[in-house]
This record gives sequence, C-alpha cells and structure tokens, in this order.
Amino acid sequence: MPRLVMKFGGTSVANVERIANVARHVAREVRAGYDVAVVVSAMSGKTNELVGWVKESDPLYDPAEYDAVVASGEQVTSGLLAVALRRMGLPARSWQGWQVPVETTSGHGSARITAIGGTRIGERFEAAREVAVVAGFQGVHPETGRITTLGRGGSDTSAVALAAALGAERCDIYTDVDGVYTTDPRIVPKAQRLDKVAFEEMLEMASLGAKVLQVRSVELAMVHRVPTYVRSSFDDPDNPNPGTLICDEEDIVENPVVTGIAFSRDEAQITLRRVADKPGVAAAIFGPLAEANVNVDMIIQVVSDDKATTDITFTVPTADYERSRAILDSHKDAIGAQEIEGATDVVKVSAIGVGMRSHAGVASRAFAALAEKGINIRAITTSEIKFSVLIDSAYTELAVRTLHSLYGLDKEA
Amino acid sequence: MPRLVMKFGGTSVANVERIANVARHVAREVRAGYDVAVVVSAMSGKTNELVGWVKESDPLYDPAEYDAVVASGEQVTSGLLAVALRRMGLPARSWQGWQVPVETTSGHGSARITAIGGTRIGERFEAAREVAVVAGFQGVHPETGRITTLGRGGSDTSAVALAAALGAERCDIYTDVDGVYTTDPRIVPKAQRLDKVAFEEMLEMASLGAKVLQVRSVELAMVHRVPTYVRSSFDDPDNPNPGTLICDEEDIVENPVVTGIAFSRDEAQITLRRVADKPGVAAAIFGPLAEANVNVDMIIQVVSDDKATTDITFTVPTADYERSRAILDSHKDAIGAQEIEGATDVVKVSAIGVGMRSHAGVASRAFAALAEKGINIRAITTSEIKFSVLIDSAYTELAVRTLHSLYGLDKEA
Repeated sequence: MPRLVMKFGGTSVANVERIANVARHVAREVRAGYDVAVVVSAMSGKTNELVGWVKESDPLYDPAEYDAVVASGEQVTSGLLAVALRRMGLPARSWQGWQVPVETTSGHGSARITAIGGTRIGERFEAAREVAVVAGFQGVHPETGRITTLGRGGSDTSAVALAAALGAERCDIYTDVDGVYTTDPRIVPKAQRLDKVAFEEMLEMASLGAKVLQVRSVELAMVHRVPTYVRSSFDDPDNPNPGTLICDEEDIVENPVVTGIAFSRDEAQITLRRVADKPGVAAAIFGPLAEANVNVDMIIQVVSDDKATTDITFTVPTADYERSRAILDSHKDAIGAQEIEGATDVVKVSAIGVGMRSHAGVASRAFAALAEKGINIRAITTSEIKFSVLIDSAYTELAVRTLHSLYGLDKEA
Repeated sequence: MPRLVMKFGGTSVANVERIANVARHVAREVRAGYDVAVVVSAMSGKTNELVGWVKESDPLYDPAEYDAVVASGEQVTSGLLAVALRRMGLPARSWQGWQVPVETTSGHGSARITAIGGTRIGERFEAAREVAVVAGFQGVHPETGRITTLGRGGSDTSAVALAAALGAERCDIYTDVDGVYTTDPRIVPKAQRLDKVAFEEMLEMASLGAKVLQVRSVELAMVHRVPTYVRSSFDDPDNPNPGTLICDEEDIVENPVVTGIAFSRDEAQITLRRVADKPGVAAAIFGPLAEANVNVDMIIQVVSDDKATTDITFTVPTADYERSRAILDSHKDAIGAQEIEGATDVVKVSAIGVGMRSHAGVASRAFAALAEKGINIRAITTSEIKFSVLIDSAYTELAVRTLHSLYGLDKEA
C-alpha cells in the first residue's frame, strides 16, 4: 500500500468535536488505499497553558523539565484521535515520540531530529493497516532517554521527517488556511491561492515571514524531496480542496517570475555612521553580535560622503534590538563609529520566485514602482530567487500591494 | 544515605503555588539527610478532565488509549515539581513510569506493578543526591512498550512499590488529612488520630470503606514491610506533624481491642427466600455472579421457618445491584427460590483491631449495644481482626458513634 502522512495543527484538534472531524479526513485517505500516519499538535491553547505553569514555577526553568511538561499536550491529542478513529471502526493506535522512536539531539526546547525508526509503525501497517497517530513536536534523546521537544511549530517538522522515514508518497499539512497564497490575503484581498510552489520558494517565504509552515520542515521536505501539501482541515472531509503542493521546481510547468510577496515586521535596523574604513572593522561589529547569538540580516555598507569612513547598516530581529544596541555600545571604541542609530518601525518586504534566475531586472522594476509611490527604501538585499527591501513600516500595505500588482499576482475580479 | 519515598496527591499539587509548597516539604527531608524520591499525582481535577475527553470521544474507548491520555496528568506534575525543586537549588529530575521503568501487567486502566527498576534512580542518588520526581499512577508494559495506568488512587501503590524497590527507610503518603483516624471525624467529632496502626488493621480499614489509602498500596506495604506514614501536606513544611505510622503489629506497644470503626455505604443487600436446601444451590447462585465479576460479600444462610428450605442473604457493591438482580432473575429456575428481595438503603459498619485475636466476646458486646439503641442488624460477618454488621443506612451515624464509644475510642473532652 502507498503510505501517507497527514498532520493536523492545534486549531484542527481544538476539542473532541474537531478531533472527530480529523478522524473523518483520515478515514477518507484510508478508504482511498493509503496506509496513514497522522501527526498531531496539542489542542489549541494547551501548550500555552503548560508553558505558563512552567514559567510560573521558575522563570529560569530547566529546559528538560519544560519538555517533559509541554510534550504532554501532544500525548493527549494522539490518544484522543486514536479513540475517535477506532470508534469509526478503523484500527488505530497512538505513538509517543519515544515509542516510535523519534530520536533527537539533546537540545531541549529546540531539539533537532537525528533519526526516526519507521520499522514498528511499518509493521503495524502491514499486519493490520493500523493508522499510526503520532504525537508531534516531540522526540527522545537516545542517550539520556529523556523527552525532547522541537520548538514551536515543530509538529510540521515531525510530519515531514516521518514522511521521509516511512517513504510516504506525500505529506499533507492540514491547517486553518486552505493553502499557500501569493501574499497575506488579510492585506491584499486580491491574493491568490497557489496550486504549486517550489521547495526553494517556500523556504524563502517561510524564512521571510509567511507563517504557513515552519522553516525547518520545508528544509527537510526539500532535502528528502517529500511532496508536501498545505490544505485546510475545515474543508468537508468527504470533498476537500487539494490545497497547495510544495514540490520540485521541475514539477511546475510554468514558473512565473515572482511567485509570492512576503513581509516581516520582526526587523529592526541599526546603522553605524562614519566607521573607520579599515580592515577588521566588520569583525569588530559582527563578532560580538554573533557570540551573543544575534541573527544579523541585510548588511549594507556604503562609503560616507567624507570618503574616508563608511556607513554600515544591518537588521536584527526586533526581540534582539535592545540587546544588540547595548553590545555595540560596549564595543564602541573597538568599532570606532561616530554614531550608532537605530529604528524599529521598519518592515522587510520580499518578492520570491525561482523565475528570477532567468529574468534580469526583476528587482529594479520594483525599486521604480516603490519610488513612484513615494516609498523610501532603507536597505536592499538580493539573492538568486528573491529580493528584499527594508522600508518604513507605515508603508507596509502599500508596498505589498504595489509589488503584488506589479508582478501580475492579483486575482482577476 | 538512607532513602525516603514521599507521595503527594492531587490536592497537594493542585496548582503551582501548592507544588512550591511540596518542594519545601521535600527540601526538609533532603536537609535531614535523606535521598528522596517523590511520587506525584495529577493536579486535582486534571484526571477528571482527561477522562471526560476520552469518554466524550467514545464511551466504549480503548483502555490503552485511555492510559496514554490520562497518564499525561502525572507527567505534567512531575516536571513542574522538578522545576520547583531546582529553583530551590536542589538537584532534581522528573521520571515518567516508562523511564524508571515501572513495569506492569497489560491490564490497561487497572494494571498491576510487576517490577520496578530502582537502579537508575539509585545511581542519580549516589552521583548527585538528585531528587527523583516520579509520575505516579503509571507504568509501562514491558512487551508492548505502551503506557499503562494502575487505576484510581494508584499513586499510593506507585509510592509504596517504589519504596520497596529502592529499599527506602519509609514511605510518607502526604494527603489532605493529617493521619488515620479511629473513624470518620465528620461523623464522630470525638474521633482521634492514631499514632500507629498495624498493616493488617489498615488493610481492613481500607477495604471496609476508610478512603485514606488504596487497598493495594497497603497490601504492598504489608508484604514488603515498608513503614508508611499518612500525613498532611497542609502542615507547615518546616514543622510538620508526624501523622499516622502504618507498621508491623509488633512495633505497636499496646494494642487496643478495637483500633477503628469503618463504614461503607457502597453496599446493597440481596435476600433469596425459601431456597430448596439441597447440594449445589450455592453454586447456582454465586456461580453466575462470579462470572459477571460481581464481588459478593457477607454471605449468610439460615434455615427457613418451614425447616425444608433456606434463606440466603448477601451483599454486593451498590453499583452492581441492578445487574445482580437481573442475573439472579434469569437463573431463578435453576436456583429455585420462591422470592428474591433486595435493599440498597443499607450500610456496613465494621470494627477493626488486631487485639480481637486475644479477646473473646468483642462482637457480642456490639450486638447488645446496637440492640439497646433499637438498631436492627440485617447481617453479621466476622474475621480474626474485625467484625461487620449490615444495618439500615438511616442508623449509620448512631451505630458508628455507639461502637466508637463502646470500645473507648472517644477523644477526651
């Protein structure tokens, strides 16, 4: 039998009634001839409740105990879904991370999967066509035998990794939206659902602010070439929409130049003015930030008007902004900057498309269109399949809509 | 270092604040020089919530999935208590049933412990004096690797079994009462807390309706001779009362004739009138009930006034009353009874004491005292260290108080 992995997030399993609905989605695929493994998240709100208790117990909690507490949420859902499936007459059982086993690193709270044993689940497929209901987001460290978790959104990663381990035909990620859109439909009503999107594009979209899938899960899907659908659990279980397929670039017949527009408000800008333009200055700036685990993005360096110094601009996650300023202040002498400026009211808007590889001048059309609307560009970065501009956050909607129209992504009325 | 097992029930770990209080009790014992393993229940109310979800998913749920869901409650508490202990500077970690491991039979929902591996916890004691916080009520079936639970109140059993496996000096069961009383203080204000009670007496008390400890845990404590205290988690953690010690009969210097008065409202009476007094009739009555797993108690047989037939009276748990009547009705011909009567408004009142072994006439004094109060005795059973009378439930309080006074158990004013 071909194998299928289905994954359902927190809103899809929010209560017993929603879990029964998930069971109907699973039953459809079993009837269609698949051996099914289902990966589930905790009921929505449960993870926050558990995290709240841990932090109340100790703000400086032990991450291993955090994992033991928080992993219980998925354990509950996996058992309840197995009960619901059996009520429908389908053989089913729950699997905790340590039972599968899903082996991970020891990095409690944000562990990475190192290996998944698919043998035991596979045996149950073959013996009884038994549906495997797997608790997502969690694993076990093989040396300590302790429960680990993969970090927020980790159930997507659990699902894709399990699909790879089981040799599944595809992985279906069920969520509360019906697919991947050209941009956020709440901002651009003319946004369209994509039928297909390339792994590389989805990876950029996820990295650049589209929150449909966890970045790590897209990486895994790309590496293991797992065709992955994003689709809605709120569709009629007997007649669902296919959603968006994330797949190899070659499987997409006609690639548009730009596939989607993403944006991230989680950016802060830091500018160092009149830095002495000498060797080693970049190391003096970025070394201490790297040591403090600050993720620096969009680095731009331009020679100052005095020709002897240089201005350096870069972005950091908003959450790290204050800390980054403090680090730079404490290294001010070594850096030798005359001034350190910053802004948090900025947004990074990005256009993504594998079609950019074969088209020149894609970005420059954007710069012209944004300038025409009076939008000032603070910084630009480009890569093979995307470009990003940093602008004042007040212009977010205008910029996203402008680029969405410019690249022909608007839905026809 | 001597070892100690402490157990805290649901009300003792009801929220983060109460869990912090538990941590202070544990810290006291660590300071006193013990290597400590703590067994915890789920936060009060959590188990009912989880059970509710399972039953809502399917009233005929799979017991293995029930266990996977319900065991998550203790998992949460174990992690939170480990966090609270570490905050106080004590080395601590949580242990799930499968991590210890606590091996059980496969009887999901009411599994029995078959073996506990104490080696790994012992190693952590010796390496770091690390407090082991063990999720109670749960284990793992060694062949299937699936999570099992021990049934309601099973955390007491987990604690005593762990104490035996670790060779602990004693086991302290913390609860919301401060010890074992001569009878229920809500009914008899003059009830007194016992300093010591013999294993055998406690076993009878638990079996006969005193709900301080689960029967199975007392059996284990008796078999493994684990001195067990029942004490209050609501005492000042720095200056607690010792509670009641359950111990060997020989460790109690002066045994009173009667140690306590227990009562159980969970009894129903069934009487078969004018049963033909011939061989095999008992089998015809009790065989079908045994097959249906009805626990029959207090069997009395008296010859009827016609001398040719016999009346048979016995009790069953109230929950099994209707079912038992139906079973007997369907076997009426084989039994040959003229009439089947029953009553559910009855109560079993028992007096327990190892001192009965060496004193004659203990029960007959009770019969006289009850008759004097106009209390009609429906049935009597006696054993070496207890006797029970079945009476109308309206007389429960009067009968308990009468016996409590009769045997000198009243607290002095």
